Amino acid sequence: MEYPSKLIEDAVNEIAKLPGIGKKSALRMALHLLKQDEDRTQSLAGALVDLRTKTQYCKVCHNIADAPVCSICQNPQRDQSIVCVVETATDLIAIENTSQYRGLYHVLGGVISPLEGVSPSDLTIDSLLQRIQDENSEVKEVLLALSATMEGDTTSFFITKKLKPLDVKITTIARGVPIGSELEYTDEITLGRSIVGRKAYEG
Amino acid sequence: MEYPSKLIEDAVNEIAKLPGIGKKSALRMALHLLKQDEDRTQSLAGALVDLRTKTQYCKVCHNIADAPVCSICQNPQRDQSIVCVVETATDLIAIENTSQYRGLYHVLGGVISPLEGVSPSDLTIDSLLQRIQDENSEVKEVLLALSATMEGDTTSFFITKKLKPLDVKITTIARGVPIGSELEYTDEITLGRSIVGRKAYEG
Repeated sequence: MEYPSKLIEDAVNEIAKLPGIGKKSALRMALHLLKQDEDRTQSLAGALVDLRTKTQYCKVCHNIADAPVCSICQNPQRDQSIVCVVETATDLIAIENTSQYRGLYHVLGGVISPLEGVSPSDLTIDSLLQRIQDENSEVKEVLLALSATMEGDTTSFFITKKLKPLDVKITTIARGVPIGSELEYTDEITLGRSIVGRKAYEG
Repeated sequence: MEYPSKLIEDAVNEIAKLPGIGKKSALRMALHLLKQDEDRTQSLAGALVDLRTKTQYCKVCHNIADAPVCSICQNPQRDQSIVCVVETATDLIAIENTSQYRGLYHVLGGVISPLEGVSPSDLTIDSLLQRIQDENSEVKEVLLALSATMEGDTTSFFITKKLKPLDVKITTIARGVPIGSELEYTDEITLGRSIVGRKAYEG
């Protein structure tokens, strides 16, 4: 694509590096900013730089935080006896938005994936073990909420093996047919697992 | 949605103000930036601010430019005898990318739309008339390339009326069945116009 201005071209190229944004959307955004007040662009740019330079990671759970310890870990009203293990901060936000979980979290930073060169030492698994072994720890349950993929399952298996010697209950989120799905269109593996993992009807 | 950090929330809110971006995509972008080197964010923010603060509008054609006169108007190899009238810089870029046009442009800045409060004086129509009446003007043809909407047609009509007394040929881009379309799925108005506007077969 040819651009009428080098400034537009630079901006489009930078915006198009963001995930899910092509050159056409990037151009539309650049032209949108040009039409708006200068303050708009300044506050967008400022928010991005602040995000990148000021964000910290919680020392306890490795969640994104504004302070050395994140607001969830600092909140005494959260259930201190359960830790939910997630891959990323995005997954944490997704679980928070369900309003069904009031415990603590532990953000792994990914899953074990030999193909992508991610080994257990690249994740925050050691930190999780230390956290549970800490003498002040109140953790009684570790809830594994990892992706239902081979990498996720491998990681769950690895963590379970490490946690076995410690005195904690290990649970995992339920796998099954998603709410609102029709059986006819559910894949065979999910449907098969939902039968193997059947539970008492509570209707 | 709840965010683990005020910095994330601010960034997401700012990004989500861009056209076509919702909160979920904005969050994905924010987390993407967090994973990348700080340079990336700095150069993105820098490019946006530079775009907004340093971009100028061409004195002649009102296109986006790096200098007081844009690169197209400055280019002596462009055909100085034809001016293509477009609504926005986006349309200009779209026409440039066809490589079928080597003349000059005139960016109106919109179309006449009483409903949205856009009157002829909000557009660069006067500047177009002055440009053609200028004693050094070489313009012999004005090509109207406006949207095929009621507003676009109204604007074309208005400009045509203003240009009538001047010694220029007025043309408009061809309307018809798009290349690659099947007749069966072409709307009736387009199909009807394509019959009224039929031309000699050049096969």
